[in-house]
This record gives sequence, structure tokens and C-alpha cells, in this order.
Amino acid sequence: MVILNCIHAGACLFGLFTSASAAAVNTSTPLTYGIVLFRMFDVLDVMGPTEVLQFVGASFKTDIAYIAETMEPVTTRPIFPSMNPLNNSVYPLLPPTHTFETAPELDILIIPGGPGWRNPSLNATLEYIRKTAPKVKQVITICTGSALAARAGILTGKKATTNKSSWPSTVSANPNTTWIPNARWVEDYSSEPPIWSSSGVTAGIDLMLHWVEQKYNKENATSIAKFMEHVRIRDPSYDPFARNETVAV
Amino acid sequence: MVILNCIHAGACLFGLFTSASAAAVNTSTPLTYGIVLFRMFDVLDVMGPTEVLQFVGASFKTDIAYIAETMEPVTTRPIFPSMNPLNNSVYPLLPPTHTFETAPELDILIIPGGPGWRNPSLNATLEYIRKTAPKVKQVITICTGSALAARAGILTGKKATTNKSSWPSTVSANPNTTWIPNARWVEDYSSEPPIWSSSGVTAGIDLMLHWVEQKYNKENATSIAKFMEHVRIRDPSYDPFARNETVAV
Repeated sequence: MVILNCIHAGACLFGLFTSASAAAVNTSTPLTYGIVLFRMFDVLDVMGPTEVLQFVGASFKTDIAYIAETMEPVTTRPIFPSMNPLNNSVYPLLPPTHTFETAPELDILIIPGGPGWRNPSLNATLEYIRKTAPKVKQVITICTGSALAARAGILTGKKATTNKSSWPSTVSANPNTTWIPNARWVEDYSSEPPIWSSSGVTAGIDLMLHWVEQKYNKENATSIAKFMEHVRIRDPSYDPFARNETVAV
Repeated sequence: MVILNCIHAGACLFGLFTSASAAAVNTSTPLTYGIVLFRMFDVLDVMGPTEVLQFVGASFKTDIAYIAETMEPVTTRPIFPSMNPLNNSVYPLLPPTHTFETAPELDILIIPGGPGWRNPSLNATLEYIRKTAPKVKQVITICTGSALAARAGILTGKKATTNKSSWPSTVSANPNTTWIPNARWVEDYSSEPPIWSSSGVTAGIDLMLHWVEQKYNKENATSIAKFMEHVRIRDPSYDPFARNETVAV
């Protein structure tokens, strides 16, 4: 992990990379990830996977497309003033890199959550998810991203989990999915592509580190967790925020 | 926590806020946070605090200024191609809300980390930190943000911690700070304003939740952790990533 150490936080200074260290990089698995952006997305649902993939990119060719309806920076600000009664300014913008029309072919589609998943005016977003999911190798949802995926119809007949705080409304709005109330993340392989869904927000980091372990290697996942000083939950069935419900899986 | 439930992930739909629920909001502690942005900042060092403060903002008037040298979106992309040997595209932009000249008066100054802290060309950033820190109520550094704070001179004679993966270079570059090798976060009260520093990346979320507990109330911190499904480390001296070193505090 020479490169990883050096790029992020390690002992080297700017510009000291050598061709020798660059040669240690594994170029065998280039992957393009796409993260769908929509108004009122959750910032950590997007930046948790981004952070993990930036580290992955130190050793494996990695691209992330941030994909939205238009090229306008996407705001996390609520749509209605009534949802921001104190008129706070706590809502960063994220400029997309692509629109739904210009997005590259993806290997992995990542669907973040956030309160915007409930927006009635998400037809273009839902259409993009519906159209793209069947063409990728893997779908990953973070937090209430699974609720958005269910709205798009790609979780019909599948099992998934979601943020436990929004459990009742997500489950009642999407009855054609088997919702797992006690899971840090859920992996569904019932059809192609596999769909993994995480529980709320930081559970997405655990899912992503498990993804790295499975798709790349265990050493990478361990190193990344160490750099992030993230205390991993490695067991997908261990859920400190589990709902007190039972479900037949 | 009616508002919090409702805004983020709860059982309500868009636009259903009532004046009754709005009236439950505590408007007694409006605070303005400023987050310093610089090229190659760490995305989670910025978005971890942002996420926590967005939740805080449901109950307490809260503003965040994202402050940079210019109004150009700040990139997380490395400066030299040699630091991105695989030519990855994994580097989102963040548009600032203010420049160092136009920034509002701050109550709390937050200094994130990221490999850009080593950039030799940070004079304006260092000057802003140096000038602003004495005027705020509290300084918070996340990850290697403490190394940047030390470079700016505001950690001289104080105790702090940082990302353990960059420990040797941070410590050797900043010998006038007492670096604590085994801490999830460190609180220095030796002079005004207090300076709190977290360990790497996700340790910043634990620091911020502790901040919420101390500055606002315990119920808020507990609720936010639950919404984020974040398994907190509550003891600042518990450090799973501690350096095997001793230091006289």
C-alpha cells in the first residue's frame, strides 16, 4: 500500500512519487462508478462511498461519475421553506460531472438516500435508475437510497434494508420488497445484477468496505478503514439500530 | 425531536410542517460555523461535520459558511499528476459560500484535513486561520486539519491529536504541539478559544457528536447518531487506532 500511504496522509511530500511506486499499482480492474444525485440528497451517503473509492483509486483505476438531471450544482437544501423553519444555511452544493443523458457506461450504480427521495418530481431520476440498473454489474444503495430504488421499481421481489428511522414510511410505500429490519447491510443475488443495500448513512461505509474486500482484496479494505480510523462492522447481520420486528427471509 | 424526525427520514411527507411543530424548535442558540476549504481537502472531514450540523439545524438556528481563497469550486483533485498515477476521476468539487475576505463572523471555526494540508502554497489559508482563530468561541480540527492548524501557528504550546497514519510527518513538522498518540479526540482549554482536535476522518463524527452533547444537549446527540446509524465512541481516550507511543500530558 505504498501509494495509498503516500497519497493520503503518509510520510511523503508532494511530487515525490517514483515510477517504481507507480509500477506497484494494480491496473487490472478499472471500474466506473456512478452516483445518482438529486435535490436533498444526504451528503454522507454520497461522500462516504466517495472517500472509500478515492482510497481504492490509489491502487486500482477508478472513476466516479456524479450524475444528475442537469449540470447545475445539486443542492441539499429542502424544497419547501417549511422544511427549513429556521432558515438555516447548512446545505452545500455538489456539481455533477454528467447528466442522465451524458453519463458514461457504468460498472457500479450507487444510489444515495436523503429526504429528497420522497420528492414527487423525480421522474427523470427514476427513469435513469430504471434504465441503468439492468446494464451494470452491481447496484449499491446507501441509507434511504433503497427507498428510491424501490420507487424506481428495481427492488420488486428483492430483499433490502434501509435507514431504520424511516422504516415505517419506506416499508409501507414499497410493499413489493422484502425489507430486512435487522441488518447493517443486505446482499440480494436473486437476479442480475446483485443489489446491495445498506442501513442508515454510516452503515454505507461498512457496506463499501465490505465491497472493497470482496471486489478488490481484504488488505485494501483493512488499510482504508485504518486510514479513515473507521471502526468497521464486518457482520452484515449485526445491527445496533435494528428494528424490533421479524421478517421471513 | 419532532422536526428532526420529520425533516430527514421520518414519517411525514413534503410540506406537512405545522406551526405547532415549528414552535417546538429552540431558537435560543444561533451559531455560525465556518469550514475552511483548500485544494485536496478530505471530503468526509468536511461532510461529517456538515451532516451532524444539518441535523442540529432542525432544532437550533445554524449556519455553515464554506470558506475558501476564491469563489471557484474547490477541488479534491491532487495538484500534481504524479499523485494520481492512474489518472482517476474520483474528485468532487465543492463550491464555497464565501471567500476569506467575505466570510461572516464565526462562532466556531472548523478546519478539515486531507493531503492538501501539505501544500506549500497555502499562505492565504494559513493567514485566514491565524487571523480568525482568536476571534471565535471554539476551534475544531478534523483529522489532519490539526496539522494545518499547527502550520498556521494556532497549536503552539497546546495539545492535540491527528490522523495516526500521518503521525510521524505531522509530529516532526510541528514540534511545538504536544501530540497525543492515543485519543479519539483531544480537548485543549489552555487558552481561549478552546481547540478540539479529532483523530482521522470518522473520529471527526464522534468529536462532533460530543460537541452537540456539550453545546446543545445529550438528547440531540443521541438522536443524530441514531439517524446516522453511527456507532459512537464516547470516550475521547478510547482509541482503536492509537499509536504505540507514550507522551507526557
